[in-house]
Amino acid sequence: MSKVDADTVTELAQAIVSRGGRFLEAPVSGDQQLSNDGMLVILATGDRGLYEDCSSCFQAMGKTSFFLGEVSNAAKMMLIVNMVQGSFMATIVEGLTLTQVTCQSQQTLLDILNQGQLASIFLDQKCQNILQGNFKPDFYLKYIQKDLCLAIALGDTVNHPTPMAAAANEVYKRAKALDQSDNDMFAVNRAYRHQALPIHAPLPSSLCPLSPMWGQGSGT
Amino acid sequence: MSKVDADTVTELAQAIVSRGGRFLEAPVSGDQQLSNDGMLVILATGDRGLYEDCSSCFQAMGKTSFFLGEVSNAAKMMLIVNMVQGSFMATIVEGLTLTQVTCQSQQTLLDILNQGQLASIFLDQKCQNILQGNFKPDFYLKYIQKDLCLAIALGDTVNHPTPMAAAANEVYKRAKALDQSDNDMFAVNRAYRHQALPIHAPLPSSLCPLSPMWGQGSGT
Amino acid sequence: MSKVDADTVTELAQAIVSRGGRFLEAPVSGDQQLSNDGMLVILATGDRGLYEDCSSCFQAMGKTSFFLGEVSNAAKMMLIVNMVQGSFMATIVEGLTLTQVTCQSQQTLLDILNQGQLASIFLDQKCQNILQGNFKPDFYLKYIQKDLCLAIALGDTVNHPTPMAAAANEVYKRAKALDQSDNDMFAVNRAYRHQALPIHAPLPSSLCPLSPMWGQGSGT
Amino acid sequence: MSKVDADTVTELAQAIVSRGGRFLEAPVSGDQQLSNDGMLVILATGDRGLYEDCSSCFQAMGKTSFFLGEVSNAAKMMLIVNMVQGSFMATIVEGLTLTQVTCQSQQTLLDILNQGQLASIFLDQKCQNILQGNFKPDFYLKYIQKDLCLAIALGDTVNHPTPMAAAANEVYKRAKALDQSDNDMFAVNRAYRHQALPIHAPLPSSLCPLSPMWGQGSGT
Repeated sequence: MSKVDADTVTELAQAIVSRGGRFLEAPVSGDQQLSNDGMLVILATGDRGLYEDCSSCFQAMGKTSFFLGEVSNAAKMMLIVNMVQGSFMATIVEGLTLTQVTCQSQQTLLDILNQGQLASIFLDQKCQNILQGNFKPDFYLKYIQKDLCLAIALGDTVNHPTPMAAAANEVYKRAKALDQSDNDMFAVNRAYRHQALPIHAPLPSSLCPLSPMWGQGSGT
Repeated sequence: MSKVDADTVTELAQAIVSRGGRFLEAPVSGDQQLSNDGMLVILATGDRGLYEDCSSCFQAMGKTSFFLGEVSNAAKMMLIVNMVQGSFMATIVEGLTLTQVTCQSQQTLLDILNQGQLASIFLDQKCQNILQGNFKPDFYLKYIQKDLCLAIALGDTVNHPTPMAAAANEVYKRAKALDQSDNDMFAVNRAYRHQALPIHAPLPSSLCPLSPMWGQGSGT
Repeated sequence: MSKVDADTVTELAQAIVSRGGRFLEAPVSGDQQLSNDGMLVILATGDRGLYEDCSSCFQAMGKTSFFLGEVSNAAKMMLIVNMVQGSFMATIVEGLTLTQVTCQSQQTLLDILNQGQLASIFLDQKCQNILQGNFKPDFYLKYIQKDLCLAIALGDTVNHPTPMAAAANEVYKRAKALDQSDNDMFAVNRAYRHQALPIHAPLPSSLCPLSPMWGQGSGT
Repeated sequence: MSKVDADTVTELAQAIVSRGGRFLEAPVSGDQQLSNDGMLVILATGDRGLYEDCSSCFQAMGKTSFFLGEVSNAAKMMLIVNMVQGSFMATIVEGLTLTQVTCQSQQTLLDILNQGQLASIFLDQKCQNILQGNFKPDFYLKYIQKDLCLAIALGDTVNHPTPMAAAANEVYKRAKALDQSDNDMFAVNRAYRHQALPIHAPLPSSLCPLSPMWGQGSGT
C-alpha cells in the first residue's frame, strides 16, 4: 500500500502482468491519526479479481475502499483530492486572516461556519489548531504544496485550467519561503501575515484600523 | 432582519440611537430551505440589551444566533462567510472537472470526499445537484459573485491580499459571461468547460485523451 | 484637463449641454516629467467641434491627442492603459526577483530585455530606478493599485475576466501592506521579498541556494 | 547553438571538461525573423576563454551576446525572459479585449500605447497582427505556455512566488484547450472570448451593453 509515481507503477504493473502475475495498487488517503483509527480511505487500481480477493483485508484496515480501474487512476484521483483539500485550506486561512485584520473574532467566524452547511471535521480541526497554536503536523505543508504542483501539471497534460489551485500554490510557496515547510498545511496562514509573528499570535492592535474592539464577537 | 449595506445601517443606527432608541441589526446566513427548516444562522449587531431581549425570538427562528458587537460587523462577517463558500465552490468544481477531463468518475471523487474529513452538507448537496443536473438555485451565482467582489473590496480597505477570492471571482465572472447568473452558484463549473454543453452533460469521449475508460471507477 | 470620475463627468456634461453649452473632457496620460517635456498623451471626449477648435492648444501641450467620442470613454480608456502598465510592472519585478533568487544578475536580465523586442522606455527607466535605488515616485504605487481595482470593476460590469489584473492587484495590495503606498509603483517588488530589506538591496547570499556565483553575469 | 535542457547540458559539459575539453553553450533569444536579420541575442555559458575566442562569430550572427557564467544559467535566464514576454502578452490581450467589450476601439488603445512609454516593437507587432488577422506564428503559443510552466517550476525550486506567471499560464492553458496551440502566442486572446469567433473578428454589437458606438474612437 505504499505510494509511488504513476509511471513507475505502470511499468511495474506491466512487468508483473506480462509474466502472468496479478497486480493491485492501493494507496490510501488519510493521515497518521486516521490510520490509527482504521479510518483510511483506500484507492485501488489494477486487477479487479485480486481487489475482490483482498476486500476483507481492506475492510479491516480502512473505512472504505474504491476500485478505480486502470493503474495510474489512483495516483490521479489522490492528487485531485489533495488539490481540493489544499485549495480549501488556503481559502479558510484567507477568511480567518481577513476576519482578523478587519478586527473581528476568528473564533466567531469558526463558530458560524461550524453551524452552517460548510461544517466539516477538516474545517473544525484545522481552525481549532490554528486558534490554539497546536502545531503538530498531520499533513506537512511541503507535501500539500508538492501535490498542488502535480495536480496543476496533471491539468496541464489535458489543457485544463486550474486557477484556484494555481493561486493556492503561490500562497503555499510564499509560506515555504517563510520557513513553514515542516509545519502542518494550515501554516499557510503565515503567508497572509506581513510581520514575523508566531502563526497563532493576535495581530497588534495598531494594525486594526477599522475598530478598537478587536475580537469582541461572542457566540451564544 | 433584512440586509442592507454597511453605511446605510450605520447611518440608520446613529439616527435611532441619537433619538434615544435602541438599534439591532440581524442579517441571516442560509438559503430558502434552511429558512423553512428553522436552521438559519443569525448574526446580530447593535444594542446588546435588545439582542438579549430578542433571544427567544431568535431561538424560534434560527438554529443559532451570534452577537457581533458594533454595527457593520455583521455585514463584514457575512461577506467573509460567503467568500469562503464561494471560493470553496470554485475549488470543488475545479476538482470535479479535472476528474472528468482526466477520464475518471466524478461520482467516485464525490464518494471519496464524502468518506473523508472534508465531508460536509455543502459539498454533498452541491455535487449531487451537479451530477444529477438539478438546477434549482438555492444561492444565485450572481449573488455569490457580488459577495466575492465585496469581500475583495473589504480586503482592499485594509490592504489584505485575498488571492483565492480574486481567482474565484474571475471564474465566476466567466460563468456570468456564459449566462449562468441566474443558476445556482455551482453553475460556475460551466466556466471550466470549453464547449457549450449543458452543465451536467458528460464530456464527449473525444476529449478524453488519457484513457478510453471514461468514468469506470466504482466505489464499494 | 483635470480627472474626475465617469459619473460626475457625465452629469456635468449633461448639465452643460442641456443649457446649450459645449462640453469637452481631456484627461492626460503621463507623469510629471512627461508634462514638463510636452510629451503628454491627451484623451478627449465630448463635443467633437470643440475638440477641433482646441487642437492647436493640445498640440502645444502634449505629444498627441485622441478624440474618443462619448463622455466616459476617456476615463475607461485611461483605466485600461493603467491596467496594462500596472500588470506589466508586476510582471517585470516578478522576473527581476526570480533572477535574483536564482542567483543571476538583474542587470544582465535588463540588458537582455533592452536588446530585444520588449525594449521600451518604461521597462528601462523602471528597472534602472530599481537597480540604482532611485525612489523618486513618478507614479505612486497606491494610485496604480487603485486603477487596477477600478479596471477590474470595469470588467465586472461587463462580466469580462481580468485574471492578470486580479493577480497584479493582489501583489500591489501586499506591497501596500508593506508600507510602499507612497513609493513609485516599482516598489511592488517589495511584495516579492520575504525579508524586510530595502527594496534595492541584494538578497543575502545565504538565500542563494543554487549557486555561489551571485550576480556574476556580464554583458558584452 | 541548439537548446537542450539544463541537466543534459550540465552532464555534457562535465563529460567534456573532465576529458580536458572546453565547453560553451550558446542558446539564442529571438524568432525566425530576427535570425534572418542578424538580430538574435546570444546567451553563452561555460568556458569564458572559449566565449572570447568565439566573439567575432557571435558578432556576425547576432546583435549582442552575453556571457552568463555557470552552465545552466543561460537556460534559466531564457525562461525568465520568456516568462516576462508571455505574461506581458496575456496582459496586452486582456487590455485589448476589455477595450472591445466596453465598446471602445482596440486600434485607439494601441495608438495610445504606441505614443506612451510602454511603446515597444513587441507591443506594436503583436497588436497589429491581432487587429489585422495575421496569424503567421513567430512564437508558437504552445511553446510560450511550456516556458511559463518551466519558469513557474524554476520559482518552485527556490520557493519564489510567481503569481503573474501562474495567472498567465492558466490563460494560455485555456487557449490551448480552444485549439490555439499552433497559432502565435497572441492567440491567447481567444481565451478571453466567450464565443467561437475567429480571433480577430469584432464582437457582435449585441455584446456591447454600455454603448451603441462600438469602436468609434479615432486618433488624430
